[in-house]
This record gives sequence, C-alpha cells and structure tokens, in this order.
Amino acid sequence: MKHLLICLTCIFYLSNISAQQAIWESKEILSPVIHEDNRVTFSLRAPDATNVQLTGDFLTSPVSLVKDREGIWSYTSEILPSELYSYSFILDGVKITDPANVYSVRDVTSVMSLFLIDGGVADLYKVTDVPHGTVIKQWYNSPTLNKERRMTIYTPAGYDANKEKYPVLYLLHGMGGDEQAWSDLGRAIEILDNMIASGKVKPMIVVMPNGNVSQSAAPGYSSNGFKRPIFMLPHTMDGLMESSFPDIVDYIDAHYRTIPTKEGRAIAGLSMGGFHSLHISKEYPDMFNYIGLFSAAIMPDVIPEGDVNAPIYANMDAKLKKQNQQKPALYWIAIGTDDFLYKSNVEYRKKLDELNIDYVYYESGEGHIWKNWRIYLSMFLPKIF
Amino acid sequence: MKHLLICLTCIFYLSNISAQQAIWESKEILSPVIHEDNRVTFSLRAPDATNVQLTGDFLTSPVSLVKDREGIWSYTSEILPSELYSYSFILDGVKITDPANVYSVRDVTSVMSLFLIDGGVADLYKVTDVPHGTVIKQWYNSPTLNKERRMTIYTPAGYDANKEKYPVLYLLHGMGGDEQAWSDLGRAIEILDNMIASGKVKPMIVVMPNGNVSQSAAPGYSSNGFKRPIFMLPHTMDGLMESSFPDIVDYIDAHYRTIPTKEGRAIAGLSMGGFHSLHISKEYPDMFNYIGLFSAAIMPDVIPEGDVNAPIYANMDAKLKKQNQQKPALYWIAIGTDDFLYKSNVEYRKKLDELNIDYVYYESGEGHIWKNWRIYLSMFLPKIF
Repeated sequence: MKHLLICLTCIFYLSNISAQQAIWESKEILSPVIHEDNRVTFSLRAPDATNVQLTGDFLTSPVSLVKDREGIWSYTSEILPSELYSYSFILDGVKITDPANVYSVRDVTSVMSLFLIDGGVADLYKVTDVPHGTVIKQWYNSPTLNKERRMTIYTPAGYDANKEKYPVLYLLHGMGGDEQAWSDLGRAIEILDNMIASGKVKPMIVVMPNGNVSQSAAPGYSSNGFKRPIFMLPHTMDGLMESSFPDIVDYIDAHYRTIPTKEGRAIAGLSMGGFHSLHISKEYPDMFNYIGLFSAAIMPDVIPEGDVNAPIYANMDAKLKKQNQQKPALYWIAIGTDDFLYKSNVEYRKKLDELNIDYVYYESGEGHIWKNWRIYLSMFLPKIF
Repeated sequence: MKHLLICLTCIFYLSNISAQQAIWESKEILSPVIHEDNRVTFSLRAPDATNVQLTGDFLTSPVSLVKDREGIWSYTSEILPSELYSYSFILDGVKITDPANVYSVRDVTSVMSLFLIDGGVADLYKVTDVPHGTVIKQWYNSPTLNKERRMTIYTPAGYDANKEKYPVLYLLHGMGGDEQAWSDLGRAIEILDNMIASGKVKPMIVVMPNGNVSQSAAPGYSSNGFKRPIFMLPHTMDGLMESSFPDIVDYIDAHYRTIPTKEGRAIAGLSMGGFHSLHISKEYPDMFNYIGLFSAAIMPDVIPEGDVNAPIYANMDAKLKKQNQQKPALYWIAIGTDDFLYKSNVEYRKKLDELNIDYVYYESGEGHIWKNWRIYLSMFLPKIF
C-alpha cells in the first residue's frame, strides 16, 4: 500500500517536472502569503528575470519586486482591509498570473490571480461551513430567440429536502460578462449561502442568465469553442434581451418550485444588467416586486425614442409611471461617486423625481467595479421577499 | 445609445491598461492560432524577455520561440492530430500560462493553457450544438463521514422534461483530483452530451463525487479557502472512501429519478478511482452491474491483508469471487502499455484468471494521462446500460 502511494506521488511530480527541471530542484514558493496583520507578501521565483512588478486592485500603480540571492522576487503590501483582491505579476514586461497561486478569475479577456483578506466585508465572500445551496448550469430553450441557451441557477440549502415554493431573484451581469460572472466575479453563491445561513436573507432561488442574446453560453461553454472572448457582442442592448426575458421566467416557473407571482420575483443587475433590469421591469410591470439597479447604464437622455429599433425603449416615461402605479415594493438604485455612469444616474433620479416615482437610493464611494457590486448585492438581498 | 456603448467600451479598456501601458499601445496578440492544416502557432509579446520556451503535452521537450522585430516570440508546431492539448510558456525561466489564451485547466497544483484540435477523437470533447445535459454542484450529507461534501452531477438532456427513471454511472477521479476533475480535465460533460446525442450512449445520470474523504470539496470550494491544493491527502486509500460510498448512492437514489437497482448502476474510475471502483464494487457485489477500471491502482501484491487497518481490503480473493458469482454484466479493465501501473494490472488480470473471474481487457498505448482516460470513458460509456 505504501509503495503504491509513493509510486503515485512520484508519477505526479514527474509529470510536472518534464518541462522544467529548475522548478523541481528548487523549494516550493508560497505566494501570496497573508500575514497575521493582513500585510501580504507576493513572491515569484525568477532568477533569470531582469524586472518583476506587481499590479493589483489594491495598488494605484504597479510596484517593483525585489530579488534575493536565490532569485526570488518579492514584495510585501501595506495592511490591506478585508476584500477579495485580484493581481498580476509583470515579468519582464509580460502580465502573468502568479504561478504559485492556482486561484484565478477571468474578467472578459483578462485572467487575474485572486486572494481574500477576511475579518470584514469579504467574510461574506468566503466558503464557510454553513449549509450550501446547489449551483446548476442549466440549458433552456428560448422560443423568442429560437436558441438553446445556458444559465446559472442557485437553489438554496434545503430546497431538495422539502416541497416549499421559493421566491426568485433574476440577477443580471454587465457588458463583457456572461452567466458565470455573478458566481465567479461576484461571489454570489458564497454571499447567498452565508447571508441565508445567518438568517439575514430569505431562502431564494437565484437565476443568473446570459444577457448577451447573440451568445448561447459563456466563452468555452458554447459551440464557439475556445475562441477569444468578446467584450461587446452583437445585439447588445438593442431590446432583444428584454423582449425575450419572459422565456427565462417561464422556464424557471415551469421547472423549479417558485412563487410564480410578482410578490415572488425580484430583478437586479449591474451596469448593462442594470439597464436590462430597468427596461424589463418597466416593460412587464406586473412581473417584479423588487428592482435593483447597480451602477446601472441608465442614460435616458442618450436613448431618444427611435435611436434604436426597439419598441422596448419607446414611451419610457409613461411606462415608468405605469410601473410605479403597480407599486413595486422596492426600486433600489446604487452607484459609486467615481462611476463614469454617476452623472447619468443623477439625471435618471431627477427624471424619477419629476415623474413622482418612488425609489431608494444608495451612494457608495469608488466606481464601476466588482467590489461595489458585491457590496450592493449584499445590501439588496436582505431587502427583498 | 451609441455614446453609452462607447463609454462602456472605454471603461473596460481603461480598467485593463491601468497596469501596463505597453499592452494597450500594442496590437492584440492571438495565441494559439490553429492553422488549416492543424499546425499551431503560439505567440507571446515579450520585447524585454531574453528567452521564451514552450512546453506542452504534444512536445517531448521544451522548444524555443523566436523573437521578431516587434518583440513577439513565436513557434509553429508540426501538424497535430486531433486531441485536447495543454501547454505553458517558459518566460525567462518562469512557467506561465499563455496571457492571450483565457482557457486553462488546473491539474492539482499546475495551471496550463488549453487548445483543441478537432476532426478526430477530440470532436467528442468539444461543446457542439446538441441537446445539453445539466451540470449540478450538489452538497450532500455523508452520515458515515459525518460531513457535508460536494459532488458534481450530470443529468442528461431531457431529464427535466419527462418522468422517466435513469441509470447512474458513478465516475471516480484519481489522486490529486476532486469532484471537478472529470468535468474539467476529463471533458466528461462534452463526451456525454455528444455521445448521447449521437445515440451511441444511453441517457444516464453521472455522479462525480470527491474521492478524498478528508476533503469536503475541491480546492477553492471548501472552507479551506484559497489554500494551495495538496496531492496526497490524509485518509487516501485507507478504506474510508469505500465504506462511506453507500451514503452517496443513497443520496442519489433519494434525490434523483434513478433506476435504484444493480441493473441501473455502473462504477468506473481512473488510477486511485479505479482502485476505489475495484474495492467498492467487490465490497457491495449487488450494487453495480458495470465496473470500469481505467489505469487502476490495483496492486494486489502490495496490499497484503493487514497492511492497512481497513476490513475493506481483507479477503480480497473471496470477495472478488463472490462479486463474479453475482454476474456483473461488464468488468472492464483498460490501461496503457507505458503506464507505471501496467505491471500491476498484468498481475491483477493473472489473479482474475486464476480465480476464473470474467473481465474484458483493453490495452492502449501511452501511460497515466488524461488523454487515455478520456478515450477509455468514451469506450466504456457505450457498453453500459
């Protein structure tokens, strides 16, 4: 038995060293290392490199790493507040993920290494020993688009053990995102597991569809194969996502134990997904009781009637008034003061004020970033259902 | 509307260039590029690098890339046969993924870039426009282990649209793997979707549990957070996986529409998972009608009774004979001639011959690699149910 384990261990290491004897011979690098005081040390073994830098969302500009006598380059950060961070090395001018860190996340065409500082806001983003919901990659047919499409569905812990009906949050991504974005970048699964377990959030089904109607699934999961992801796809924000949205709601109500009424439905989205949430919720005013616009791409002045060939965007004021008359329980708008969409959100709120439409507004610091959207989600969830 | 799209596009690119003006100013690299004749060109923009090499499972040793006047290093391969390949660059001595390719896969502690050459065996590994099954990340309770654990479950296309009962294949990973291995490295989802669609394989549920009983979930999905993955975990192949296995079968039969009898169950696994399949199927001889041992870690001579404190491994010959008396429909053994476990598989077959136990044997070339395990899976699936 022991021989076998030794053999298996050997074969594993052998398969790794085939390419690079140097790594095998040297001791293993641990990077990043999070210290007790939440300083973080990043290290890269690169004896032959001439320049190694670090870039990350906790730095305002790249910093240089320092090389030791063994050829290990390292940098130790300041004390970092609790957050989920991403970073890259720049090795002789080439931006790379940290080879010692297998945890990374793709944001459109960039892949970045990840780490998490706990003890604060990021505690919600950790996998913890609470009851876990189920994550489902579900294909469905959209009759309107005449297409098989993929979405991510979360059912809460306990869903399989009872016969109850659950409310549903439809959670939409931004431009460049897909049905993986809210789980991968937004840590939506962990936020839901943790907040439901703590009793702060009602158990709910969360549906994360793909908001690019020209796309059947996220890059790598469609018949496009391993083609390079594209930021702005055809039919982006031209009304087709909104007009085909009832296909998704119909599928979910038919296949999951939902509360299939307005009282049991919420919709929220970030950036383009906020734009979609705005237009879907006003187009179907009896469909959603809770609406969340996170850094939403709402630019009423830039969507004059007739600018796009979609009746979805026509008669906006009248539709918004009608939606408001149906008295949704919550119309929540959140944006950061540094967001490039901040001004258009000011204008949108002015329009809502003029139309006497109710909403709740939350203003954060910073801009158009996942850090804000994770926080907005964790603020929105306790307010619904 | 157009202004908005331009703004969104700008903010996207801005967020990417913050760290590295050089990349922004240069034109985009496409890598890898698969040519008509299935040669593949790999490219890396690295004007400041002094040495760039390429390593991959289609190369016997690393090759050097050549730098052009713009600082782009490139290499074009020979004509490659259809296969799913992985590769890395070695940039000034550091093994990195291809920054132009967002598709990668983790194998224990290594992350490698991916590409696929179609037109042959790898056509089964592509996502194609066929009806897709559903992939479920399911937590379940193991009473034997007193632990919540995570597994991957595949339900075939059409499962949600009818009330039929389905047979179940339990598909086990090797040492260093987890409940993600068969889908991520083994392309099991694509193989199943494609082979079921072509009518060659019966629609079935496939359950891919985590074979490391000390682990609740794959690295990154448990409360261990982003700790570095470990190849050999405690309680590896000590009998606990086998003795707790009925917990998994019970959960699946209770929560999915299964054929909950021997006729409706198969078990197969690679390496350590083959060892598990051997011992689980002989320990519960009425549970599985189809058994697949892929490059299995079966070393009867190295598992003398009493070597480990697990009754699972005791009285092996008598248990194997009993299992054979229950007449399983298929006992399939596959291994490559270069596998470090080849000799022990010869010995195991000799033992089966001596005990007059029926089996079907398939011998491939090459060794202990995912290429073989994907092929074995695609050969095993049409033989079951």
